[in-house]
Amino acid sequence: MSTTNKRITLAQRPVGTATEVCFAHDEVPTPAPGPGEFLVKVEYLSIDPTIRGWMAYDTYLPAIEIGAPIRSGGLGTVVESNNDGYPVGTTIFGMTGWQQYATFDRGVQIVPEGIPPEAALSVFGTTGLTGYFGLLEIGRPVAGETVLVSGAAGATGSIAGQIAKIKGCRVVGLAGSDEKCAWLTEVAGFDAAINYKTENVRRAIREACPDGIDVYFDNVGGEILEAAIGNLALRGRVVLCGAIAQYNDERPSPGPNNLGVLISKRGRMEGFIVLDFLKRSGEAIKNLGAWVKDGKLTYTTDVIDGLENAPAAFDRLFTGANTGKVMVRL
Amino acid sequence: MSTTNKRITLAQRPVGTATEVCFAHDEVPTPAPGPGEFLVKVEYLSIDPTIRGWMAYDTYLPAIEIGAPIRSGGLGTVVESNNDGYPVGTTIFGMTGWQQYATFDRGVQIVPEGIPPEAALSVFGTTGLTGYFGLLEIGRPVAGETVLVSGAAGATGSIAGQIAKIKGCRVVGLAGSDEKCAWLTEVAGFDAAINYKTENVRRAIREACPDGIDVYFDNVGGEILEAAIGNLALRGRVVLCGAIAQYNDERPSPGPNNLGVLISKRGRMEGFIVLDFLKRSGEAIKNLGAWVKDGKLTYTTDVIDGLENAPAAFDRLFTGANTGKVMVRL
Repeated sequence: MSTTNKRITLAQRPVGTATEVCFAHDEVPTPAPGPGEFLVKVEYLSIDPTIRGWMAYDTYLPAIEIGAPIRSGGLGTVVESNNDGYPVGTTIFGMTGWQQYATFDRGVQIVPEGIPPEAALSVFGTTGLTGYFGLLEIGRPVAGETVLVSGAAGATGSIAGQIAKIKGCRVVGLAGSDEKCAWLTEVAGFDAAINYKTENVRRAIREACPDGIDVYFDNVGGEILEAAIGNLALRGRVVLCGAIAQYNDERPSPGPNNLGVLISKRGRMEGFIVLDFLKRSGEAIKNLGAWVKDGKLTYTTDVIDGLENAPAAFDRLFTGANTGKVMVRL
Repeated sequence: MSTTNKRITLAQRPVGTATEVCFAHDEVPTPAPGPGEFLVKVEYLSIDPTIRGWMAYDTYLPAIEIGAPIRSGGLGTVVESNNDGYPVGTTIFGMTGWQQYATFDRGVQIVPEGIPPEAALSVFGTTGLTGYFGLLEIGRPVAGETVLVSGAAGATGSIAGQIAKIKGCRVVGLAGSDEKCAWLTEVAGFDAAINYKTENVRRAIREACPDGIDVYFDNVGGEILEAAIGNLALRGRVVLCGAIAQYNDERPSPGPNNLGVLISKRGRMEGFIVLDFLKRSGEAIKNLGAWVKDGKLTYTTDVIDGLENAPAAFDRLFTGANTGKVMVRL
């Protein structure tokens, strides 16, 4: 165990894209766990778009303090423990932050043996649960309905879309490259995929969803949200999961100009935060695990090595360089 | 009974405000009811914002055809009948259109004796039912919650707000004049009223709803919708009833720039059309009637005389000249 703890902290709040100036790299002494605490050696960091909000302002969680490690989910092993519930050798997932070591006294989940770290952080992690609960509890798809997913090759979108497929829906995904689109239809089993960077999105959505969209799972916001609302079916639902197209805006972008469609189509648009569903994660992980085992659900990861590369890994979310779950391996 | 039927028909589709050029005044022979039909002499027209949409394009109903009478609810008396279900003398409410006489064979509601026409068209009519079902079924307010209503001195908003008050909520209304605001707090029993034309709406909403908005009943759209979303409470609901501030836009206005609030606050925004609830109108009218009788629910009307003044009456909705239900007495 190292006596020093390398960290990446918040140097300044981002305006627009979170560039290197927002991050400071430092080293502090490795903390010693106090009574009831345990020390975790971090092995993987979960790199998520929501971190952009935490860096900038209060959201559903207070903003990260300047000088504090970047708030982040992470997976690691207990290396020192004063807590019988978390003995040395236990693998946990918790809010480790971007650093090599973190202490906890509670508030972490034990990762069961036999689950590889990359699965624990993706399909069985926050992003998988986000896709699961967002689609099923907010979108409430019914077999035979049409489900459109944006950010469909991302960690959450790919899970949401595949679950919709498992539930008997026609599933269309939006992604930003032909390679991602090929992955969606050839590997993930989507019925159709739209490259939003090269196609006329409005027309492509209309053609791929001729009976309208019953559930739109929105990870991006912006023009694609407007296009999806414009093609909503009667009693269509819009699941507001994220709006990555807007997180780096220097000032707020206009919203969809066609909310009247929600009236004439009796539509529902609803946001959610996966934290509210974590008490039901056992049920979700059981179902997700069975689908993975049966070959009905696949996942892919985008693993970047080295804590020092966490900012670059984070940037991949916004440039769309990743297919699947972005994570950093320490 | 006159042998001629004066009508106001759609001359051209409106671009921007529906001015006189959109309307044609003509006279045709009074129709004779065919087998199973009955002839209604129209006595009152219900003047509603949704007519603006019907004039322009397909919405939840197909657009009015050029040359056809302006589609409109109306109240009248059966004056000739080949239908035993609707004998001469029966008072009905139906889609009469802007004309003196209309024939039907079904699809109208019988107005029970003892209900004055002005009540039948307002509190017990489409606008009253819109306020009732929109608030209770879409907004689902709980006693102690804060409910914000825009267009609060209008036919629908005034009913929605008073029902919220009956259900034990703190109710704040937005209206466009000090006189309307005084009516809201002094007559309709609202807890507070905001003059959106003279006050800083964002700040006034924040001050009037210090714990956030649990239910926002939206009749106007636009900047007020954005301001309400910006002050939404956790798990707040936005009832999309109408967007009168935007109906005369020549091109679509940008939507609210803060839909991310719906994510962080787990908010729900949902549209509805009262037509879907008409099969439950008996239940609503029973409750509305009891509240009126007990003095808990008041209503007010804005009655304009003369079929030829229907376009001017319609315009009052958009200039905000009216308090309460706009109707034309023939």
